[in-house]
Amino acid sequence: MERDGWYSEEWAGQGSAISLRIKEKLHDEQSPYQRIEIYETETFGTLMTLDGLVMVTDRDNFVYHEMMSHPALFTHEKPERVLIIGGGDCGTLREVLKHEEVRHVDQVELDERVTRVAERYFPELCAANADPRAHLHFQDGIKWVKDAPAGSYDVIIVDSTDPVGPAAGLFGQAFYADCLRALARDGIVVGQSESPLFHAGLIKSMHEALRGANFLDVATLYFPQCTYPSGWWSATMARRDTTLAGFREEAVAERDFATRYYNDGIHRAALASPEFLFQSLL
Amino acid sequence: MERDGWYSEEWAGQGSAISLRIKEKLHDEQSPYQRIEIYETETFGTLMTLDGLVMVTDRDNFVYHEMMSHPALFTHEKPERVLIIGGGDCGTLREVLKHEEVRHVDQVELDERVTRVAERYFPELCAANADPRAHLHFQDGIKWVKDAPAGSYDVIIVDSTDPVGPAAGLFGQAFYADCLRALARDGIVVGQSESPLFHAGLIKSMHEALRGANFLDVATLYFPQCTYPSGWWSATMARRDTTLAGFREEAVAERDFATRYYNDGIHRAALASPEFLFQSLL
Repeated sequence: MERDGWYSEEWAGQGSAISLRIKEKLHDEQSPYQRIEIYETETFGTLMTLDGLVMVTDRDNFVYHEMMSHPALFTHEKPERVLIIGGGDCGTLREVLKHEEVRHVDQVELDERVTRVAERYFPELCAANADPRAHLHFQDGIKWVKDAPAGSYDVIIVDSTDPVGPAAGLFGQAFYADCLRALARDGIVVGQSESPLFHAGLIKSMHEALRGANFLDVATLYFPQCTYPSGWWSATMARRDTTLAGFREEAVAERDFATRYYNDGIHRAALASPEFLFQSLL
Repeated sequence: MERDGWYSEEWAGQGSAISLRIKEKLHDEQSPYQRIEIYETETFGTLMTLDGLVMVTDRDNFVYHEMMSHPALFTHEKPERVLIIGGGDCGTLREVLKHEEVRHVDQVELDERVTRVAERYFPELCAANADPRAHLHFQDGIKWVKDAPAGSYDVIIVDSTDPVGPAAGLFGQAFYADCLRALARDGIVVGQSESPLFHAGLIKSMHEALRGANFLDVATLYFPQCTYPSGWWSATMARRDTTLAGFREEAVAERDFATRYYNDGIHRAALASPEFLFQSLL
């Protein structure tokens, strides 16, 4: 909602809202799937909203995009084939492509317009889109996974919107079972799993659905995300055949690319569950 | 600011704001030091603001109060004498008194009205105020520390408002030097140190001031705090004579009191610095 020089998002059902002061609206369109708006904010750089919900700002997207990609990719021994479901702003794709082990990335985003608008207003996030390893498809991600050859991916990243509307299916056991089938041995799926403060029940039900789909290990990563509901966010990883404990620490220490949030200490730290969730996730 | 059934706090200088939907205003007074307002919110329980800034809500204060107390107290080998500067809502005091090693707590809050209003509207946070180990003083904390006998405290907790106005002195090297003198051997001081996203410069300057005051080791704890600016907060610890690495893990595991955020994994995790701060805090 725009009023008096502020963009505001009311956090649904939570009696709370975040507002960003805006200088001007740069773009406004109704795609076949959703309303896409771009604002220039006063202190958060460029802002993209989808159906009135904050998707990405220049200032704080680095935490989310790094945490959606690096923990899973540094946990896997050799992540060569990666699938991103959603991820239309391409910020996760950029982080994935920083890993030289990665040979092929399929990104399957439902709404091509999100990516086209991101290319124009978030050129930094889209800087790697022309990488020959990156393959952009504008299709239904649920169907893509169902049709994927068995064992065809090492890591699947579900960089989706909230679990309502078209994205709801990305949080269910049937989808996770398709992911399990599409993953190669030791493969990992990671999906954004909302706010620990506001949506603890969702995190718990994701764990149950992932275990129900026969993943051997499930673990949630916790991290701050200023412009998402409650300012505290999470991603939940699951692995087919082995545990999620441990990661390629030496590779993290010797990585030849820059990160702003992620490092080896943060990787270990993000896996620590707050006490109020700890018991229910065991 | 109150408007259309919402309380809003604009995060100063950050072009952003948080809003909580309110049912009614329960209290409004101008103390000798500040304006104290109490609201009943729709989903965050009771809210206290000081000069229009969120101090505490029922729903999310547990993270802050646990992180201001338990990491320092479980790092110290035997925290018997504790000083709290500020802390008028008494939530930190309650957590401190959960430690059976603690024999004496002085809480030095400038504004008695904050505590009296908290006693009325946050009875849970004030539940331990009648503990015979708790001693409430309504005075200037900076002077209290200056006058304290050398070596008289094991842990000093600076649970203050933002570093402006009367609280500004609680972030300077002169105050930290007084804390060092007032601490016994192996003593620890911990102070709230604002938002890593918005106030990284303050965290850095606190480290410098604490080292400048001859503390041997300094470390920052990071944690989510939904209703504080950016939703991401920190506390910075410093220790006189030895490192802050390690803590009484067995005592944490065997603690006979409940926590909602803190546990041994969270203790270790909170000490991990995000990459963008890691280098500058070395």
